[in-house]
Parts: sequence; structure tokens; C-alpha cells
Amino acid sequence: MAHTLLQFDFPFTGPWGGEMATAMEGLATDIAAEPGLVWKVWTENAAEGRAGGIYVFDSPEAAAAYKEKHTARLAEFGITDIRAMTFDVNPALSQITRAPL
Amino acid sequence: MAHTLLQFDFPFTGPWGGEMATAMEGLATDIAAEPGLVWKVWTENAAEGRAGGIYVFDSPEAAAAYKEKHTARLAEFGITDIRAMTFDVNPALSQITRAPL
Repeated sequence: MAHTLLQFDFPFTGPWGGEMATAMEGLATDIAAEPGLVWKVWTENAAEGRAGGIYVFDSPEAAAAYKEKHTARLAEFGITDIRAMTFDVNPALSQITRAPL
Repeated sequence: MAHTLLQFDFPFTGPWGGEMATAMEGLATDIAAEPGLVWKVWTENAAEGRAGGIYVFDSPEAAAAYKEKHTARLAEFGITDIRAMTFDVNPALSQITRAPL
């Protein structure tokens, strides 16, 4: 299986940490059921006012569909200046560095 | 354990895919032994001329030390315009979306 990595980050004003987890538990449950999603790491940097996520999908098509959907959803939350980038995963090098794929 | 995520991406002109894996196997073996590294996913986008990596470390200190080391190493390779960002991982939300931590 070819994996596609999607990285999102954007300006964010909180909530952070445990409060973020409470506020976004429903969203996370929804994202967990996203077609083709292998996993997502949720990222946050309160000091720099930035948050995002690192996603692995099982196909480029699934990643592209999610990228469009999530960008639109973030815009509905009033979040702009979104940086979303898609990459192929290099499987041989990632295996050497214990990447969980 | 608190996890710290480090994302790197930068302009890259290849090699890609299998040739990249051959060229960088030694570097990957070295990175696999980096103090505090949990895992790294190697990323590449030939169409956009960009590559990078997503790292999880077991402490902010380990991530900061690697960020400095790897930025200097990339500069030695002639790579500039490096984007390196550090984030805390939100463990509760990441667990819901099956993040391998």
C-alpha cells in the first residue's frame, strides 16, 4: 500500500491541551471514520499560536478529498492562512527510522 | 511520556523514491539512532520539488537538539529555505484517531 502524508498547520487561538481535547472530541471521532485515514496526530503550539495535524492516508485520492473537506471546515471555523501540504512517503527510509505505517 | 512532533520540509531536487532510499540509507541509519527519536516518516513530493520528514521525539529537549543538528546538516547539503516547526502532541485527540505514539 502506498501511503500519502498530509500535513496541516494554521494560526490557532486555543483552547489548548485538555480543553482542546474536550472541545474537539466529537470532531476527532468524526475524523477517525474518514475514508482512507490510517492515522492522525493532533498538533498544537500555544506559544506560537499554531495548531494542525499530521495525517497518513492509504491513497493520494483519499488524502486529496480530505484536504479539500478539512480546508473548507477550518474556513467555517474562521481559520485562514492554512498551510496544507501533501507528500508521498518513502517506505524504505521510513522503515529504517521505525515509522508506524 | 509527552511527545513532541517536529515537521521539516524544504526545497529538494531529488533523487526520489528508490534512488533517494539508496542515496540516504546511511543517513537514515544514523537518524534511527538519534537520542529521543521515537520515529520518523520520510516525505517527498517530486512534482512540487519538496521533501522533508515528520518526527516524533520523547521530549521537547530531544526535538530541539535534533532541529538544530538537522538544520545545520541540511545547510551543508546546500539546502536553504528550510521550514522546521515544533508542536506538542495532543494525546487524547490523537488516541481517538489511532495515532501510533
